[in-house]
Amino acid sequence: MSKLISGFSKLTKEEKINWLAENYFNNQEETIKIIKKYWHSNAKLQQLHDDFIENTITNFYLPYGIAPNFVINNKEYVIPMVIEESSVVASASKVAKFWSTRGGFKTKVISTTKTGQIHFIYKGNFSDLEDYFNSKKDDFKTATSSITKNMEKRGGGILNIELVDKTLSLENYYQINVTFDTKDSMGANFINSCLEAIANSFRKDDIDIIMSILSNYIPQCLVRAEVSCKIEDLGGEDPYKFAKKFEQAVKIAEIEPYRAVTHNKGIMNGIDAVVLATGNDFRAIEAGVHAYASKNGKYTSLSHCEVVDDNFKFWIELPLAVGTVGGLTKLHPMAKLSLELLQQPSAKELMEIMATAGLAQNFGALSALTTKGIQYGHMKMHLNNILNQLNATDEEKEVISKYFENKTVTHSAVLNKFNELRK
Amino acid sequence: MSKLISGFSKLTKEEKINWLAENYFNNQEETIKIIKKYWHSNAKLQQLHDDFIENTITNFYLPYGIAPNFVINNKEYVIPMVIEESSVVASASKVAKFWSTRGGFKTKVISTTKTGQIHFIYKGNFSDLEDYFNSKKDDFKTATSSITKNMEKRGGGILNIELVDKTLSLENYYQINVTFDTKDSMGANFINSCLEAIANSFRKDDIDIIMSILSNYIPQCLVRAEVSCKIEDLGGEDPYKFAKKFEQAVKIAEIEPYRAVTHNKGIMNGIDAVVLATGNDFRAIEAGVHAYASKNGKYTSLSHCEVVDDNFKFWIELPLAVGTVGGLTKLHPMAKLSLELLQQPSAKELMEIMATAGLAQNFGALSALTTKGIQYGHMKMHLNNILNQLNATDEEKEVISKYFENKTVTHSAVLNKFNELRK
Repeated sequence: MSKLISGFSKLTKEEKINWLAENYFNNQEETIKIIKKYWHSNAKLQQLHDDFIENTITNFYLPYGIAPNFVINNKEYVIPMVIEESSVVASASKVAKFWSTRGGFKTKVISTTKTGQIHFIYKGNFSDLEDYFNSKKDDFKTATSSITKNMEKRGGGILNIELVDKTLSLENYYQINVTFDTKDSMGANFINSCLEAIANSFRKDDIDIIMSILSNYIPQCLVRAEVSCKIEDLGGEDPYKFAKKFEQAVKIAEIEPYRAVTHNKGIMNGIDAVVLATGNDFRAIEAGVHAYASKNGKYTSLSHCEVVDDNFKFWIELPLAVGTVGGLTKLHPMAKLSLELLQQPSAKELMEIMATAGLAQNFGALSALTTKGIQYGHMKMHLNNILNQLNATDEEKEVISKYFENKTVTHSAVLNKFNELRK
Repeated sequence: MSKLISGFSKLTKEEKINWLAENYFNNQEETIKIIKKYWHSNAKLQQLHDDFIENTITNFYLPYGIAPNFVINNKEYVIPMVIEESSVVASASKVAKFWSTRGGFKTKVISTTKTGQIHFIYKGNFSDLEDYFNSKKDDFKTATSSITKNMEKRGGGILNIELVDKTLSLENYYQINVTFDTKDSMGANFINSCLEAIANSFRKDDIDIIMSILSNYIPQCLVRAEVSCKIEDLGGEDPYKFAKKFEQAVKIAEIEPYRAVTHNKGIMNGIDAVVLATGNDFRAIEAGVHAYASKNGKYTSLSHCEVVDDNFKFWIELPLAVGTVGGLTKLHPMAKLSLELLQQPSAKELMEIMATAGLAQNFGALSALTTKGIQYGHMKMHLNNILNQLNATDEEKEVISKYFENKTVTHSAVLNKFNELRK
């Protein structure tokens, strides 16, 4: 029997859940119970969350953790992190504390320009197109003035509007390239609204507008974060050996894409956790960052390391388009709280905090990888998760954790040991 | 006064929250109230979620929505989507229904090989290294047998172990490249454990092992999804014009990186929503996908379109490393429920479902972009969010929605209209 359905979005939430349970689950009662178990008891608050998207049936919990002891440009921060992966918050906290006594993180926003494009096809003469484009410049201003009014008050707006000939890449293809400063907002809606208004005023019979849309590629919206200290201040058994090996690991990520992708993935563990916690859009951030990592034709590391004379320096430079107003930032109560925890940062400051979280994560991962190996810390957490799944008692947890101290944690090995204990 | 703290992770959850409120918030009582408001009333269930990561203080709600009417390889699916961005689920549902009467989505897993690497520095003679590597092959097997035992039972395991000379890229740099089939698990812990075991048995004085780690770059773990139909079956006012314009939009994304990044970001809106709903790791997926999009030296579109004779064909090919066992997939009650909703897919089937969600999202975005523009649907949702934030009544919502039907939605414009109404 077909399970296709018409008018699903018009059903109430209860009706949606009932239909779902009837058609896709064996144990319908239990399914409905689990789904509803995650509803908030306050119906109004739940409604707020339901309305963020469509066909919402419940909430998906992601852990909200905090990493204290970050010092960024001499200011202390606790960084909120929303992430499902174990070790990330623990590592961030550890690295934050380590650098807090070594001068902390130094950050700088390099640029904040965003881009949007109107893509169109035109088969006529280029100089005619140029003339038409130039004749329209005042119209563009008029068409966008109601949209840009408030942004201009905040010091942002449209920076430049430019005609670009792309016919060498694709027949009859041109762009209007528009650059923006969107201040404290991520600016997606603002940019797209401006572009559509410009496109509408540019439209004529022999111009076929294909689409008008912002770009998530933002190599001119860059932030840098850095740590540095005397090598001897790195501490540990042999700080010189540590520094050299660490530098080597970064160099490998610079020249080997198979490593670079994973290296940068670790950086994004830190960044995305803050992106989520502050109600920003991680798909936009991810796309911009990874494209930037491949900008010179070969995918490479976003972080770099220099060990020169007695000095250790480790830094990152990457593009981040984020907002501290608009979108969900103030609508989602926990996103709002995250921004308060971060002392109401501007978008620029949030870029700096995120870059710091990314660099910290990378420092933690490389420190572990080049010394004890990544599995040591990770496995402790993994073991804990498996034991929770098995409903192990505190006593059982202690015995089994001790047993696995010098063994490889696999799901089956833990299960065996657990069954042995309970036998 | 310094807010740096020692032993933070050892504090109880209550103590952490109190410290946070005292040190970083003005209204401490209200802060604590908001944080606790998001706790689950069932302490044991809350504990489960707390233990996923470290320093957890509460839950971050992401909306869990569902998109019905997907037909993939003639089988019907409702796809669970966890995402904070409005329009994504609505668009997925609409596109699913559209293609359900046009043959549905056709998908195919092309390959499932994953890679891990042991990176090391060696200053001696290469042929000596080769001899040593060859002499160690049995030891590698012994070292990993306890880890691979269960994976081999499921038909997976280590596929190949290879020595790679990378000295042309970096002085004295070599790799042991290991390929894996991890069946239904994402395999991160399995791969890393195998690599560390191999590295340990390979270790000797003149070999400096820098690190052992899986790669999130997985161009040999590929899936394809496709839709196709006769152009006239696309329907609408002028299906031929629609098809041509759609194809043009894809061609632009193929040759223009500024567009490709955003194009692929839209694809990831669909994929990540399923990744999150099923307890997989979106940072890993994102890194692998975007690196793949840049593999030929220039960042390009992951989807492609062909309009030939009377036929419209639109497809995607991309790498996805996902699991349906291990990690959080069975630990997180809602991830577990998502997998049940998807009819307990294998990892391969989940790859196909995700690729479908990505292609559907891309089809929806390009359809909107090349016709009404992206802002039309998006703004309706955005308006609704702002009205909720303002606690507008149903009546006010109706009046204001009607007013904005042919106007640009900005936060300030809505606020003005709202204040005007309430005045």
